[in-house]
Amino acid sequence: MPISPGPFTGRTLTGLAKDLRDGRVTAVELTEQALHAAGTLGRELNAFVTVDAAGALKAARRADEELAAGAGRGPLHGLPVAVKDLIEVAGLPATMGSRHFAGHVPDTDAACVTRLREAGAVIVGKTTTHEFAYGPTGDRSANGPSRNPRDPARMSGGSSGGSAAAVGAGVVPLAIGTDTGGSVRIPAALCGIAGFKPAYGVLSADGVFPLSRSYDHVGVLAGSAEDCLVAYRCLGDLPPAGRDVPARVGWVDPAGLFDGDPRVSRVVRAAVEALGPGEAGLPVGFMEEVRETYVVVQSCETVAVHAERLERAPELFDPEVLERLRVAAEVPGWRHVRAMESRERLMGEGEMLFGRFDVLALPAVPIVAPPIDRREVEVDGRAVAVRPALLALTSPWNVLGLPALTVPAGTVDGLPVGLQLVCRPGDEHHLFATAARIAPAA
Amino acid sequence: MPISPGPFTGRTLTGLAKDLRDGRVTAVELTEQALHAAGTLGRELNAFVTVDAAGALKAARRADEELAAGAGRGPLHGLPVAVKDLIEVAGLPATMGSRHFAGHVPDTDAACVTRLREAGAVIVGKTTTHEFAYGPTGDRSANGPSRNPRDPARMSGGSSGGSAAAVGAGVVPLAIGTDTGGSVRIPAALCGIAGFKPAYGVLSADGVFPLSRSYDHVGVLAGSAEDCLVAYRCLGDLPPAGRDVPARVGWVDPAGLFDGDPRVSRVVRAAVEALGPGEAGLPVGFMEEVRETYVVVQSCETVAVHAERLERAPELFDPEVLERLRVAAEVPGWRHVRAMESRERLMGEGEMLFGRFDVLALPAVPIVAPPIDRREVEVDGRAVAVRPALLALTSPWNVLGLPALTVPAGTVDGLPVGLQLVCRPGDEHHLFATAARIAPAA
Repeated sequence: MPISPGPFTGRTLTGLAKDLRDGRVTAVELTEQALHAAGTLGRELNAFVTVDAAGALKAARRADEELAAGAGRGPLHGLPVAVKDLIEVAGLPATMGSRHFAGHVPDTDAACVTRLREAGAVIVGKTTTHEFAYGPTGDRSANGPSRNPRDPARMSGGSSGGSAAAVGAGVVPLAIGTDTGGSVRIPAALCGIAGFKPAYGVLSADGVFPLSRSYDHVGVLAGSAEDCLVAYRCLGDLPPAGRDVPARVGWVDPAGLFDGDPRVSRVVRAAVEALGPGEAGLPVGFMEEVRETYVVVQSCETVAVHAERLERAPELFDPEVLERLRVAAEVPGWRHVRAMESRERLMGEGEMLFGRFDVLALPAVPIVAPPIDRREVEVDGRAVAVRPALLALTSPWNVLGLPALTVPAGTVDGLPVGLQLVCRPGDEHHLFATAARIAPAA
Repeated sequence: MPISPGPFTGRTLTGLAKDLRDGRVTAVELTEQALHAAGTLGRELNAFVTVDAAGALKAARRADEELAAGAGRGPLHGLPVAVKDLIEVAGLPATMGSRHFAGHVPDTDAACVTRLREAGAVIVGKTTTHEFAYGPTGDRSANGPSRNPRDPARMSGGSSGGSAAAVGAGVVPLAIGTDTGGSVRIPAALCGIAGFKPAYGVLSADGVFPLSRSYDHVGVLAGSAEDCLVAYRCLGDLPPAGRDVPARVGWVDPAGLFDGDPRVSRVVRAAVEALGPGEAGLPVGFMEEVRETYVVVQSCETVAVHAERLERAPELFDPEVLERLRVAAEVPGWRHVRAMESRERLMGEGEMLFGRFDVLALPAVPIVAPPIDRREVEVDGRAVAVRPALLALTSPWNVLGLPALTVPAGTVDGLPVGLQLVCRPGDEHHLFATAARIAPAA
């Protein structure tokens, strides 16, 4: 059963900002709504690790004072925001979803948090992350699994599962996440919201606990693509739009990348039908090299982050995370050298995937949200491995460093599916303009 | 017994160039001398894999014609040069010292060879390299060991052993080598000549078969530091000298880096005594990290080059090289990630080693040339492992990317020892000016 809508369900950042400016609501009132929802809906979904009522209310009061003084800071001013617990917020615990960081309280803000504060946003709390962000299921965390607002027995997806659940349940209108192989887009898609991973390196990852530096991206989760754009404009610098002509959209048949649920493909394909997409074929060998590069580089970089913890206190890891780290530790160094060479070459060649298209369209995730803890689901009588399925359609764009957005595209069995749009760096206006033309099948 | 002096023993590049300009000799005559010596002394020392009489004489005739037409190309014009067999010369076999490349004839010149030709140099042949440059002893090569001109029963050192032997025997006045952990400086020191490894990246390694890309340098071997400078000016771009004040020289006690032959230290220390050196201490932890970084990065990068050969035709490798590759293949990827992070940091911190000095002085190699094939020598009743000894004092400067020069500093037991001078990038003039002030104990 879906949980009941929260205070921000169906409301947009732009609408909220207008309400604030017009005096129909105060930042303190919005914050109180978010804090209350975090304690009810948020608790049902295990979306939050930490809720900072005192800090949030203080920031909200200040935001109201500034607004009253005519010193508005822009579209996020006074709006409640949640931040993934992998990202440092000064004075709040940052657990990274791990017992290894129980009690860890950083004393500085991550770069993206600084930007949020400068934009006047009100940070209400820290959201559940898969342990160390090392997993797309969102159900291995020291504070337990985050749950899907459409069906709390199912996974939110991960690793930014709490951020997606909080936005999906309407607890907050915006959350920040990180995306190394899909960790913003996967939970956004599974929870029926929008999520945007910018081009590699555009948003600073300073103050974000690393998973795999070559692929780590900071991203945003919100109710719609338009809200993602509003937030992204505040966090980064959107390149100026080109001529205002509709993007040429190429449909990527996901079956070429992963043998998932054909019903998901059909729903997503139907959502872009009105755009008159062409068929974009991806070169098989190229995409295989992308996948191999993803696995090797991520494995080595992740173990490099955790080697001492693996050695000294392996028992503090979740058993599944520990097992994955141990497998990753076996990848030989010469393969890492090769993979880093591949990465550089592949990034240079990513352009060619677009051919005569500006935007590639494909599902964000080729299955719907599986039940929590499940590692295999049945699709058309076939067993499908959950983790590879979740990552299959998102991780290539981390390797290539391309901007990628997921927006709600409809449902299968009552569960949300996401349409993913991918573009070349600098063409982000095409992503958002294309998303605005989408009519999801409800 | 030392072999007899060759035609270029005791002659300088500058002197030879003047003789050519003044008509006392022709490029063809110099080339014929080099070709004859390559067939006699060079053969005794197994210095050459390929001698290109026809190509060299053709180039020499052209050089003479250009000189006659008043179109001299500078200090190397018409002078015979030898090139390590790891470096591609169009139309000549490039064996890399390996049976894997038997019969391989590239059709383009390496970047450094192009520069040599543009400078009018006459390439007389390709010199013996340790197989794939993977070893500092110079005695594991598909065409046999290169030998030391001062005692042909001893190793030349490596991997640019043939280049050092050819210059040391006076077969040619100049040779090109490569230096990944000391492969120019080690054989130069053991053979009693000068060798210069520039700052990382200054000379292009295009067309050089890779050993370990992060550390591979192209370098020069000649009879003196002055000749190295002449050649380096033709191959690269020497930064303009600063104010003409003598460099402040810091002596690095090699015992802090490797427990070698104290007689070598004493001879080298005596050679710099007149410069009034201070005592430069190197931070132990820093240098240990440099060493670890060297081993890990080189291991992974080298196996990355050879993985398919290791898989498909291991029997074509020299057994010692094969065994080293197999050990290197076991280094885990996460250690490579760490080592690459270390490398970047260490390169940024290399400056601090200099403190109040402009130039660091230490032996190039802490032992004298061991007998060919020996992997352990006795020093003061202790067993010393040959390979680590040969690399100990040179490889740190590859990790840090610092310019390093070795010049003859005297002898121990009648065998040459080298003084190594190291500086910050941009301070190369200090290296050569300091070398000019050295009076080796004969």
